[in-house]
Amino acid sequence: MSSTYQGRLTLSIFGQSHAPAIGMTLEGLPPGELIDLALLQQFLDRRAPGRNPWSTPRRESDAPEFLAGLVEGRTCGVPITAIIRNENTRSGDYENLRQVPRPGHGDFTAQMKFHGAQDVAGGGHFSGRLTAPLCIAGGLCLQVLRRRGITIAAHIATIGGIADAPLDPVNLRQETMEGLVRLEFPVLDAAAGEDMKVAVEEAKRQGDSLGGIVECAVLGLPPGLGDPIFDGMENRIARLVFGIPAVKGLEFGAGFAAAGMRGSEQNDPFYMENGRVKTRTNHHGGVLGGITTGMPLVFRAAVKPTPSISKPQESVNLCTGEAALLEVRGRHDPCIVPRAVPCIEAAAAIAVLDALLEQESYEHWEKGRGL
Amino acid sequence: MSSTYQGRLTLSIFGQSHAPAIGMTLEGLPPGELIDLALLQQFLDRRAPGRNPWSTPRRESDAPEFLAGLVEGRTCGVPITAIIRNENTRSGDYENLRQVPRPGHGDFTAQMKFHGAQDVAGGGHFSGRLTAPLCIAGGLCLQVLRRRGITIAAHIATIGGIADAPLDPVNLRQETMEGLVRLEFPVLDAAAGEDMKVAVEEAKRQGDSLGGIVECAVLGLPPGLGDPIFDGMENRIARLVFGIPAVKGLEFGAGFAAAGMRGSEQNDPFYMENGRVKTRTNHHGGVLGGITTGMPLVFRAAVKPTPSISKPQESVNLCTGEAALLEVRGRHDPCIVPRAVPCIEAAAAIAVLDALLEQESYEHWEKGRGL
Amino acid sequence: MSSTYQGRLTLSIFGQSHAPAIGMTLEGLPPGELIDLALLQQFLDRRAPGRNPWSTPRRESDAPEFLAGLVEGRTCGVPITAIIRNENTRSGDYENLRQVPRPGHGDFTAQMKFHGAQDVAGGGHFSGRLTAPLCIAGGLCLQVLRRRGITIAAHIATIGGIADAPLDPVNLRQETMEGLVRLEFPVLDAAAGEDMKVAVEEAKRQGDSLGGIVECAVLGLPPGLGDPIFDGMENRIARLVFGIPAVKGLEFGAGFAAAGMRGSEQNDPFYMENGRVKTRTNHHGGVLGGITTGMPLVFRAAVKPTPSISKPQESVNLCTGEAALLEVRGRHDPCIVPRAVPCIEAAAAIAVLDALLEQESYEHWEKGRGL
Amino acid sequence: MSSTYQGRLTLSIFGQSHAPAIGMTLEGLPPGELIDLALLQQFLDRRAPGRNPWSTPRRESDAPEFLAGLVEGRTCGVPITAIIRNENTRSGDYENLRQVPRPGHGDFTAQMKFHGAQDVAGGGHFSGRLTAPLCIAGGLCLQVLRRRGITIAAHIATIGGIADAPLDPVNLRQETMEGLVRLEFPVLDAAAGEDMKVAVEEAKRQGDSLGGIVECAVLGLPPGLGDPIFDGMENRIARLVFGIPAVKGLEFGAGFAAAGMRGSEQNDPFYMENGRVKTRTNHHGGVLGGITTGMPLVFRAAVKPTPSISKPQESVNLCTGEAALLEVRGRHDPCIVPRAVPCIEAAAAIAVLDALLEQESYEHWEKGRGL
Repeated sequence: MSSTYQGRLTLSIFGQSHAPAIGMTLEGLPPGELIDLALLQQFLDRRAPGRNPWSTPRRESDAPEFLAGLVEGRTCGVPITAIIRNENTRSGDYENLRQVPRPGHGDFTAQMKFHGAQDVAGGGHFSGRLTAPLCIAGGLCLQVLRRRGITIAAHIATIGGIADAPLDPVNLRQETMEGLVRLEFPVLDAAAGEDMKVAVEEAKRQGDSLGGIVECAVLGLPPGLGDPIFDGMENRIARLVFGIPAVKGLEFGAGFAAAGMRGSEQNDPFYMENGRVKTRTNHHGGVLGGITTGMPLVFRAAVKPTPSISKPQESVNLCTGEAALLEVRGRHDPCIVPRAVPCIEAAAAIAVLDALLEQESYEHWEKGRGL
Repeated sequence: MSSTYQGRLTLSIFGQSHAPAIGMTLEGLPPGELIDLALLQQFLDRRAPGRNPWSTPRRESDAPEFLAGLVEGRTCGVPITAIIRNENTRSGDYENLRQVPRPGHGDFTAQMKFHGAQDVAGGGHFSGRLTAPLCIAGGLCLQVLRRRGITIAAHIATIGGIADAPLDPVNLRQETMEGLVRLEFPVLDAAAGEDMKVAVEEAKRQGDSLGGIVECAVLGLPPGLGDPIFDGMENRIARLVFGIPAVKGLEFGAGFAAAGMRGSEQNDPFYMENGRVKTRTNHHGGVLGGITTGMPLVFRAAVKPTPSISKPQESVNLCTGEAALLEVRGRHDPCIVPRAVPCIEAAAAIAVLDALLEQESYEHWEKGRGL
Repeated sequence: MSSTYQGRLTLSIFGQSHAPAIGMTLEGLPPGELIDLALLQQFLDRRAPGRNPWSTPRRESDAPEFLAGLVEGRTCGVPITAIIRNENTRSGDYENLRQVPRPGHGDFTAQMKFHGAQDVAGGGHFSGRLTAPLCIAGGLCLQVLRRRGITIAAHIATIGGIADAPLDPVNLRQETMEGLVRLEFPVLDAAAGEDMKVAVEEAKRQGDSLGGIVECAVLGLPPGLGDPIFDGMENRIARLVFGIPAVKGLEFGAGFAAAGMRGSEQNDPFYMENGRVKTRTNHHGGVLGGITTGMPLVFRAAVKPTPSISKPQESVNLCTGEAALLEVRGRHDPCIVPRAVPCIEAAAAIAVLDALLEQESYEHWEKGRGL
Repeated sequence: MSSTYQGRLTLSIFGQSHAPAIGMTLEGLPPGELIDLALLQQFLDRRAPGRNPWSTPRRESDAPEFLAGLVEGRTCGVPITAIIRNENTRSGDYENLRQVPRPGHGDFTAQMKFHGAQDVAGGGHFSGRLTAPLCIAGGLCLQVLRRRGITIAAHIATIGGIADAPLDPVNLRQETMEGLVRLEFPVLDAAAGEDMKVAVEEAKRQGDSLGGIVECAVLGLPPGLGDPIFDGMENRIARLVFGIPAVKGLEFGAGFAAAGMRGSEQNDPFYMENGRVKTRTNHHGGVLGGITTGMPLVFRAAVKPTPSISKPQESVNLCTGEAALLEVRGRHDPCIVPRAVPCIEAAAAIAVLDALLEQESYEHWEKGRGL
C-alpha cells in the first residue's frame, strides 16, 4: 500500500496539503521510551519553511499534536499518532491544475491514476508537505536510536553543482555529526556553503530553481543489522528515501563511482582494532550483503530542482487537448535541498531502527538453541 | 522479511549456493496465463555463467523445475514454485571463510548476524547465484507483460569507465528494445562493446575485476501505475534492484545529473500527440509522483566490480584476531555486469507487473461509483 | 503489527480510551466513491452508548472528524483518516488498575506485555471504545459495497441463552436485511427480543452482565471472492472479528453443529436456478475452499458478558502480591451484545470489500491471456 | 496473499495435490536451532494417511526433502524450504470435476475464481494434502518451542457427537500433554475413543462420513505474548487454523458457552501462587486482550465431515446446466478428525512462535529506555 511502510515498524502517512490535517501513525516503538517533544520540535523546525532567504517565505508552524501512543511523555507500546493541522485549506486556486498539469509535478499522473477524483489543491497527497509526518516518525526514531549510541546526520553535498567537502566515511567523528545537525545550512565547508547560497539567490531572481545532493551518515551501528535480498539496509533505506518527492537517485558507499573501480580498489581490506573488525577504506558504505559491518553507513540522495518555478512553461490542457503556457505563481522554494536534509535523516532513522528491532529478537535467542 | 517481496505479487526466494537447491515461489500471477518455457530458458541463459570469455568458466545448466502452479503450460492461479538443483554442493573448501572473511563479500556480516550458524559455502544465501530464482520470477512476469504490450530491455551503459551510447529516453523504439535482448553482450554501440570486452580480458589477466552501469528501459507502459510515497515505481524497483548483490546505486531519468540542473531545464514540457500526453524531454524517467506518465521508464543501476579477485587481499582471522592474507581461488567472473543485465530486467518486470495488477483493480471500478 | 490489518485494504486503528483521540486510517478505497456522512453517522450511532436502557448511561457523541482522504464528499484515492475526540480524558481514577487488574480485562496482560508503560486509563488501547474506529472503516466499506449490490446485516441471535429466530441462510431476503439494520434492538422475533431486554435489566439490577451471540449475513456476493489457505473469507473475517474485544468464538454456516453431522447431511447439493448455481441447503455458510459460492455468507460470533460488573471480584495486587477484592465502579453496559452488532457488520464489510477489490484485478485480466 | 502467512515468521505454502510436489518455505526461525528430523517425521506421520482403519487406505510416505535453510542439522538463519514429492500425479480421472463440482468441496468456487484455469486434479491447491506442508512448518516450530518449555497437544474432543473428556484448562499437566501426542487416536477417555472408532466404521460402511471437534492446548506460555486488536493470539491462531480445509468454527476458552454465562461467572478471579499470577478458572482460555496470561491457552476447532462420500449426491453440470448425480469414487477418509489433530497443533505452534519471537525483541529493550 502506497502510504504504509511495513516492517518491524509500521508507518502510515496520511493527509493532503489542503486537507484539514496531515499526520502519521507509527507502530512498533518499544514501550516506555522517553520522548523529548522540544527536541522533536527542533528537528521538525529544520524542515519547516519560511525561516531563511533560501526557502519559501510561506511560514508554517508545523507543530505536531499527539493524539495517541504517548502517556506522560513516554511511549505506551501501542500506535503513536500525531497530526499537523493545515492552516491554508481549500484555497480554490488550484482547480485549473486538474486541466493543465504542472511540468515536473504529480498533477498529470494523479489525474491518470485517480481519474479526476484526486485532490489537486497544493499537490494533495503528493505535496512535499507530506514529508512533515515522515519527519515526525523519523524524529521519534532518532531519539530512541540516540539512546543506544546511534547518531544520524546529513549535509548538503552539492547545490547547483557547487560541492561541499565530503564526509570522511572511515574516520567519521561524533563531533562532526553533532555539529552538522546544529547548522541551519548544514555543510562542512562554510565557504562552499556561502557559494551555494549565492547560487540559490541567483536562481530565485531568475524565477528558476536548483537541485543538489544530500549525503547522510549513520554512526555507531552495531554489525549485523539488515538482511540479505529484499530487506537489506539498502532496500529499506531506498523504500523510505524514494518516498521523499524529488529524490531521483540513491547510492551507497562509493555508489556510481564503484562502477568505475577495479575489484582490488573497491574491496575494503579488513583489519582488527581494539577487538573490533574494521575496514581500511569504506567503499562499501557500511553495508555488505545487505547487513551492517559496523563501519559508518554512508549514502547520497540526488534531489531534483524544485519543479515549481515562476518562468512560463509549456503544458497541455487535458480537457481540450490544446497547448497551454503555464506560470506557477505563489511562493516557492528556489531550492529544497536544505529542507530535504532532515527528511533524509528521518528516512534513515526509520530504516535503521526497523532493522535494529528486528535483529534484537534474534540476539535474545542466542542462549540455548539446543546444543 | 528478508527474502520475501510482498505486494500485489508475493515473491519468496530461497536456497543457498551449496544447498540441495535454490528456487522461488511467486504468488499472484493471474490464472490462465500461457507460459512459454523455452522462452523462459532463453531468458535464464542470458544470466547463466560459463557461456563466453567474459564470464566465469563454471558452467551451470540452471534449468528450472516447476513444482507447482502450472497446469498444461498455464498458470492455474495459485503459487508457482520452481527450483534449480545445485550440482556442486558442500564442497568443504569454504570452511575457512567462517574465520577469514573475504573483502567485499557478505562473509563477515553474515557471521555477525547469524553468529556462526550461517551457511558459508559459496556465499550461501548471499551468493549471486540467488539471482537465478529472481530471473525465473522476472522471466514469468516479462511474458505476462509482453502480452499486454509492455517490453523491458537493458544494456551495458558502462564497464570499467567505457561508455556505450545511451538509450534515447524520448523516442525509444520497440526494435531497439528487441534487438538488445537478443544480443549476447547487449550494447548499442558495438565498438564500445569491443573495448569493454578488451578491458575485461585485461582485468582478468591481472587477477582483477571490473564494475559497470546497467541502463534499463520499460516501453509501452500505460500512465497511472504506481503510488505516491512508499509504493512509487521508484520504491518498488529499488526494493527489488537492491536485492541483486553488487548493486550500489540506482537512479531514475536524469538521476544524479538532475541535481546539477535548473528547474527550467529539468522539468519536462507536456504536449499532446495523437491524443496522448507526452513530454518533450524525459528527465523524469517516466515517473512523476511515483506514478508512470506513459513515457519510457528509464533507470540505471551501478554494479560494483566482482569482489572475488585472485589478487591477494588483506583480511583478518575472526577467531585469532590476527591479520590474514587472503587469496580467493576458484573460477570467478572478471566482470558480472553482462550477467547483471537480465537480473535488472527481471527486477523491473516484477515491479511493473506488481503495479499493473494493483492498478487494474481500480480501473474496473470506474463505472458506477455513485454519481 | 497489532493494530494494522493489511490486505488489499490497509486499516490502521489508533488511540486509547483516554488519549486525546481515537481514530483510523483506511487505505485502498477506490477513488471517486461518494460517501454519505449522515448515513455513516447513523451507522455509528448504532454502536454508540447511552441511547437506551440496556447500554451504559455514558453518552458519547462519537462524531468522526475526517482529516484526510475525502474531497467534496468523495474518496480521492489516498488514505482516509478520521478521528473521534475523547471527551473525558486522564481522569486519574484508573491508576490503581496498574496494581490490581480487573478480571476478564486486558489490564494484567497489558502490564505483562508493556512492563508498566501501558496506558491504564479506561483500558487504553484495549478499550471497547476502539471499536468506534473499526465502525468508521466498516461504515465506509458498507457504502461502497451497497452500491455494488452487496448488503450486510446482523442480528442478536442470543442473549443470556434466550434465542432469536435464526436467519434463513438459503432464502434470505433483502427486506429482512434492510429491516434489521433499522432496528434499535435487531432481532427477528420481537417477543424473544423483549425477553432478552428483561434478562438484561435483571442482570443489571444484580450488578452483573450477560453475553450473547451475534449472527451476521452478507447478501448479494458474487461467487469467486476469497482465496485458498490463509486468505479465505473465513480467515479474513476471523482476523477482523477477533479484533473486537469480547469475541470468544466464531463459526461459519453450520459451524460447530457441522461437527455432529454426517457428510451426506452436511454437503449442500448444487442445482441451477435462472442460470445461477445455488445450493439447496447452506451448511457451508456461503464459503467453500475459502471462496464465496454466491449463497448468503453467514457466520456467528460469541460475545462474552461484559467483564465490568459491580459485584465484588477476587483479584491480586501485583506490587504486594496480596489478594485484593475489586469493585469496578462506573457506568457500564450490562450487555454489550446489541452494540457489538454493528461492529460485527463493520468487520464483515472490511473483509468482503478487501476480497472484492482483490478479485476485481483478476477479472479485468480475463481477456487475452494468450490463447 | 492467499498462501502466505506474514508475521514475524513468514510461511509460504505451495503445491497442488497432483503437481510434481507440495511444500513450504518458512522464514524467520532463529539461526542455529537444532532440528531433529526423525522427530519431525514422527510428527508428520500422525497426519499421514493409510495407517489405520479409520483413515483412507491411500498410503503416502510424506517424507519431506529439505532444499534449503538447514546446514548440518541446524537452521542457518535464512528461509527453510522443504518439499514432498507427489507420487500419483495427473491421473486424468478428475477432468469431469471441472464440469460437475462435488458438493462440499472447492471445485465450484475454484472454477468461479480461476475461470477454468484451476488445477482440478485431486482438489489441486485446495486439497487437504496441503496440510502436510503446514505440518512441516508447525513441526519445526514445535521443536523450537519445546526447547523453551512450551508444549502443544490436542485431542479429539468429539466425533459424530461422541464426546471425549475435556482437557482441564486450569490444572493441565505436562504428562497429559506428552501422553496425548504419543497416542495414535488421541483421546483422554479410552472408552469414548473406542465408541468413536465404531461410529467411524459404521459411517464408512454406509458410504458416509463423520465430523468432530479438536481441542488444543498450549502449556508453558509466558504471559505477555500477542497484541491488542488485529494480532491477538486469537487472530493469529484463527488465520492459521482456518487455513485447514474443513474447519468451520473456532472458539477460545469457554467460547460459545461464554455467551450464555453471566459476567460474575465468566470472569476468572486472579490469585498469586509461588510468585506467579494465576486464575482460579480459565474461561478466558489463556488469552485476555489478545495477550497470553500464562494460563494454558485452550481452543477448539470444529471439523466438518469429509465431503468426499461414496453415496450419490445431487450436483449440476456447469457446462450444460443440467442436474447431475455424482458418485465420488476413490479411497477417502470416513473421518478426517484424527488426522486434523496434528494440523491444529501445527497451526498453534506457528502462531505461538510468531508471537514469542515478536515479544522477544521488546524484552531486550527493557534496559535503558532513558529513565
